[in-house]
Amino acid sequence: MRVPPRRGAIIQCLRFEQRLKTYRHNVAVHWGDTDPARIVFYPNYFEWFDQSTRLFFDSVGLDWDSLGKKYGIMGLPIVEAKARFLAPCRFRDELVIESQVGKWNDKTFEVSHAVVNRGVRAVEGYEIRVWAHRHPEDANRLKAMPIPAEIKAAFE
Amino acid sequence: MRVPPRRGAIIQCLRFEQRLKTYRHNVAVHWGDTDPARIVFYPNYFEWFDQSTRLFFDSVGLDWDSLGKKYGIMGLPIVEAKARFLAPCRFRDELVIESQVGKWNDKTFEVSHAVVNRGVRAVEGYEIRVWAHRHPEDANRLKAMPIPAEIKAAFE
Amino acid sequence: MRVPPRRGAIIQCLRFEQRLKTYRHNVAVHWGDTDPARIVFYPNYFEWFDQSTRLFFDSVGLDWDSLGKKYGIMGLPIVEAKARFLAPCRFRDELVIESQVGKWNDKTFEVSHAVVNRGVRAVEGYEIRVWAHRHPEDANRLKAMPIPAEIKAAFE
Amino acid sequence: MRVPPRRGAIIQCLRFEQRLKTYRHNVAVHWGDTDPARIVFYPNYFEWFDQSTRLFFDSVGLDWDSLGKKYGIMGLPIVEAKARFLAPCRFRDELVIESQVGKWNDKTFEVSHAVVNRGVRAVEGYEIRVWAHRHPEDANRLKAMPIPAEIKAAFE
Repeated sequence: MRVPPRRGAIIQCLRFEQRLKTYRHNVAVHWGDTDPARIVFYPNYFEWFDQSTRLFFDSVGLDWDSLGKKYGIMGLPIVEAKARFLAPCRFRDELVIESQVGKWNDKTFEVSHAVVNRGVRAVEGYEIRVWAHRHPEDANRLKAMPIPAEIKAAFE
Repeated sequence: MRVPPRRGAIIQCLRFEQRLKTYRHNVAVHWGDTDPARIVFYPNYFEWFDQSTRLFFDSVGLDWDSLGKKYGIMGLPIVEAKARFLAPCRFRDELVIESQVGKWNDKTFEVSHAVVNRGVRAVEGYEIRVWAHRHPEDANRLKAMPIPAEIKAAFE
Repeated sequence: MRVPPRRGAIIQCLRFEQRLKTYRHNVAVHWGDTDPARIVFYPNYFEWFDQSTRLFFDSVGLDWDSLGKKYGIMGLPIVEAKARFLAPCRFRDELVIESQVGKWNDKTFEVSHAVVNRGVRAVEGYEIRVWAHRHPEDANRLKAMPIPAEIKAAFE
Repeated sequence: MRVPPRRGAIIQCLRFEQRLKTYRHNVAVHWGDTDPARIVFYPNYFEWFDQSTRLFFDSVGLDWDSLGKKYGIMGLPIVEAKARFLAPCRFRDELVIESQVGKWNDKTFEVSHAVVNRGVRAVEGYEIRVWAHRHPEDANRLKAMPIPAEIKAAFE
């Protein structure tokens, strides 16, 4: 499926930056990941994005359990996710999910993901996640907090 | 999780339009839909978006099998999907996915989705899908085609 | 798919007993539940079994959170699950999962499940679950305990 | 979770046979595979069984597409699946699914699976699948057929 690219919010993830660390997560497409059209059922790509983000944090020594203990954060909840589907993937394809933490805001950050299939970019997207503590006045809510500088540095 | 809204591509789905048909798809959150943080694992929301889009087409008499027979299209492949996560959903929540076909382009259209939990909008997002035939010169590719006017009219 | 029945462990779930409560859980088959063979991908049936068991307990006033508070149990962990697949189910099929707690052992119990599709039994199976406390000497382990009589009575 | 083993149908898969080929499928447990009890949600194990069976057939040169072309079979549909859950698996566990085709009947065969976690058998189970053609009198049904000897030989 080739559709003319839409300009806009996702443009910043099209170019992976060389100065940033890139995590590569290998995913084999299994039969059960595909639908009657014989292509990957699209929610699976978001599952692979989530996997890659967690593995990326693990790989730089910032696994989420230890982040919770050291900084008191409650995971890194998702606030936004987007994907553009450029080419279908099929049973037995060997995919690489390439991820970078491409953008740091004060209390949120954006993880860019590209799904590469035999050298071709099949899907590109991002997740925005928030650095959050348990809310001091309501245990059921979270409170976004400024992200420490050493966290950002770990991905450069 | 309340995060200041980002302006941009999704703004058109924030306001559901009264003149358009709205499909309501009921989803019970099961234990297996939730993760160790005890909230819905986010790829599930995209699965529910996909369900709602197909049910919506069924509900207006345009199920995708008959579309294939009448118009020669190959399903309605996804080209883009996005969601913003405004509040977490939990085991036993009874959700309503509200969907509208909010925007028709020449060869693509956008289905807006909102996940409503006890009257509160928990997630909002959209899918962009394409009206496509099998490519005349390559059976493995698709060719986007203009969407017939009667298809658009069915959702108004 | 009709295959001669195998005798043995599952035979007791073939006959639902009239004296026992039966829970009925409605499940619509969505596109994403099916595979390239255009039939339900079989692990989904076990997901629906799990859903039905939890809903069944809720329906008799024994939701698992309150069981934990009242009896100190750690959920009702699965120790065995089995299914026989008698007929395929397809996109848009409206299934009923019929469940009974068919057998009580001292520390475990068996939930029988049948998936009924248009009046035909498509799948039958069971789950065996254990009534367990946190182990007094090792917080990472569980210790099976005798099931209280009032729990059993709730399903008759 | 240690529960006394039940005698019966599964006993033949407890001992993997040395004379048979064993396929090993590596599976990393991701966050999204686990539930609020922080352990793998059990239907996932059946998904990994299915993956391992298909990869096993691929590995001996009998991928299902070519089987369809050469023998006219319609996949290898599942007729029965069972698992016993011996120990929970958790996020970040590196599992090995060990599979053998342990038993050949005239028209069906049984694939034994064991999930091994750090040297410990966490789950064991099997799938029974059928060798089937499209039914000559009804395209919607299948007809079980005798399994050719060379198929059996490929797994020894």
